[in-house]
Amino acid sequence: MKRIAVLGSTGSVGEQTLEVAGAFPDRFEVVALAAGRRVEKLAEQVRRFRPLLVSVADADAARALRDALGTGAPAIASGDAGLEAVATADADLVVSALVGAVGLAPTLAAIRAGRDVALANKEVLVMAGALVLRAVRAHGVRLLPVDSEHSAIFQVLAGQRREDLRRIVLTASGGPFREWSAARIAGASVEEALAHPNWSMGPKITVDSATLMNKGLEVIEARWLFDVPPERIDVLVHPQSVVHSLIELCDGSVLAQLGVPDMRVPIAVAVAWPERLPLLDRLPRALSPLDLAGGRLDFEAPDRERFPCLELAYAALRGDEAAPAVLNAANEVCVAAFLARRLPFPAIAATNAAVLEQHFAAQRAAPLRDARDAEEADAWARARARERFASGAAA
Amino acid sequence: MKRIAVLGSTGSVGEQTLEVAGAFPDRFEVVALAAGRRVEKLAEQVRRFRPLLVSVADADAARALRDALGTGAPAIASGDAGLEAVATADADLVVSALVGAVGLAPTLAAIRAGRDVALANKEVLVMAGALVLRAVRAHGVRLLPVDSEHSAIFQVLAGQRREDLRRIVLTASGGPFREWSAARIAGASVEEALAHPNWSMGPKITVDSATLMNKGLEVIEARWLFDVPPERIDVLVHPQSVVHSLIELCDGSVLAQLGVPDMRVPIAVAVAWPERLPLLDRLPRALSPLDLAGGRLDFEAPDRERFPCLELAYAALRGDEAAPAVLNAANEVCVAAFLARRLPFPAIAATNAAVLEQHFAAQRAAPLRDARDAEEADAWARARARERFASGAAA
Repeated sequence: MKRIAVLGSTGSVGEQTLEVAGAFPDRFEVVALAAGRRVEKLAEQVRRFRPLLVSVADADAARALRDALGTGAPAIASGDAGLEAVATADADLVVSALVGAVGLAPTLAAIRAGRDVALANKEVLVMAGALVLRAVRAHGVRLLPVDSEHSAIFQVLAGQRREDLRRIVLTASGGPFREWSAARIAGASVEEALAHPNWSMGPKITVDSATLMNKGLEVIEARWLFDVPPERIDVLVHPQSVVHSLIELCDGSVLAQLGVPDMRVPIAVAVAWPERLPLLDRLPRALSPLDLAGGRLDFEAPDRERFPCLELAYAALRGDEAAPAVLNAANEVCVAAFLARRLPFPAIAATNAAVLEQHFAAQRAAPLRDARDAEEADAWARARARERFASGAAA
Repeated sequence: MKRIAVLGSTGSVGEQTLEVAGAFPDRFEVVALAAGRRVEKLAEQVRRFRPLLVSVADADAARALRDALGTGAPAIASGDAGLEAVATADADLVVSALVGAVGLAPTLAAIRAGRDVALANKEVLVMAGALVLRAVRAHGVRLLPVDSEHSAIFQVLAGQRREDLRRIVLTASGGPFREWSAARIAGASVEEALAHPNWSMGPKITVDSATLMNKGLEVIEARWLFDVPPERIDVLVHPQSVVHSLIELCDGSVLAQLGVPDMRVPIAVAVAWPERLPLLDRLPRALSPLDLAGGRLDFEAPDRERFPCLELAYAALRGDEAAPAVLNAANEVCVAAFLARRLPFPAIAATNAAVLEQHFAAQRAAPLRDARDAEEADAWARARARERFASGAAA
């Protein structure tokens, strides 16, 4: 019986985590849940899984949840303290599935409390990878990736000797603009950027797929998850998203994990590891097996001219420990502005590049001592990106 | 330092084994070699690797080898006793790379002497898989596949729990007649059957690729190598031969090994296991890394109507322990007759089917007690196939 705590239980990954856990009640006990303000959905989850502890965004949400649950409600906490309480609850595994910078502090708290972490929250490693890696080592916990790409690498690395690893190859769908000319991309609309060919995701990450920034952020994650230098991490465009990623070993063997695009698989791999769950037999909402017959898989090198965000991620990794947090924060501000139709599509990459450049020029480099250092870099970059919008330099 | 003995050192796999071993003199010591009548090539190998024991086909070849080597020659044996001496020499690993039924007895001898075996000789498992599996278990040795397909499965199974394995999928190039109509295949010439699209191999195995019998024999090998029932072994046609094979796990994950078609990779995996050799850096005759960019991989279900030999392999596996030996022997006789232009191409499958049918009808079923039982089934099937040629029933 594995006891799990879920940070972000009402989000997409959180819900699917509970779908998997609910299909295997003999294997998982859900001991703590943290969500934001979706009180109704959280109340349903509490009624079904009966956790001992629940946390919500604030006192108002806590009151609403208590009202919804009536007598027999579990302990209800809120705010940062609530997130930390869920992160350090008496569990075997913490699923870190909050969205954005808010996930960093509770994830570090979980690691420092000795909990294994299934990590779906990109920002944790993008903002503070060096710091998280040091904490993981110091506390001897296991960091299990939930992203499909990193899960693929994690799965094929199992059973291989680390010294035999030559290269990690992250696959990328290429996004909706894969075959567009630079001129056409320059005029891309919000609707066009949101039309992702394979995965159904939130708007922020879908725009990141269109710029390839998403793949850049995954390169940064891979660098810390697998402790591999950036020059040994490659990206390969694979429009069908069937090969989720690959590794190359020193004897020329390339190992890959393939499957239908369904997040329940990497989630199940992370929560059940080192076991695997019979998802094909036992999920109420059926999982399709991969059928390659009649299929075709294509691969191409990413075009770093048309998609400059990918190269920015490598530049950030070659820089100081705070540089990825700077790039990520600038990008969040830019994508929000693009989605609000206040910024043209190519200005996302241009602004990201300018803010990163400004960071390097200011020689702000310093090792990350704690989450606050990463948060400070994040805030600094947001301010610089907004200054550029205000001055008109970004458009 | 791993001490290796090579059965069949002057054949294609044997030579490439020594090429790999020779590139890593700090890791391998070649202690014994067995070959047939290629005395000159063997003498070269002896001068380079200085084994303690060498075996050749017969006394004439032994004399020729002694003359070629002059003083300082190692111990030279010959015949069946010589093969057994090499198979049971004081080594850590025996590479079983003889061609045909002659390899069965020495491979069993190696297993019974407690040696790990790197197996390239198909007939060992095709003729006597049940027997070999029992011997491997009884003596607690490791059987390491050298075929590229089985090596792929072996590599991705490492690090997975056996109970999570749902299905093995062997890839097949589809051979030269993949896109031919049944009518056109019926008139296929020897030259057309020998024009394999991807791999350069001997004539027998190349014809087997054209009939898909080769893939059928690999299904039989996989059944014993991985102890998986035939209904959980599938075949997928993949014309580019880049994905060497796949496994499907219970959670829907599919793991694959990919690479350029180069036998030195699966040979190195087998001889170095559980380590891997830095082939990409250290082979004198360079190994190309796999470059997927710009590439395309296709997959299709095999057509069991146009290629009936594949189904015969499954029928043999569903039968008694000797049935695969019967099918294999009939096939060897048929392919030789086809290569000698005494049999039309479709008569290979038809004769194989008829002889297997005759075996089942005669109720000759009995468990294999030793190599002689398999050899007896082999001889019986050869006689039946030849009877059919003589009677004109095969043409």
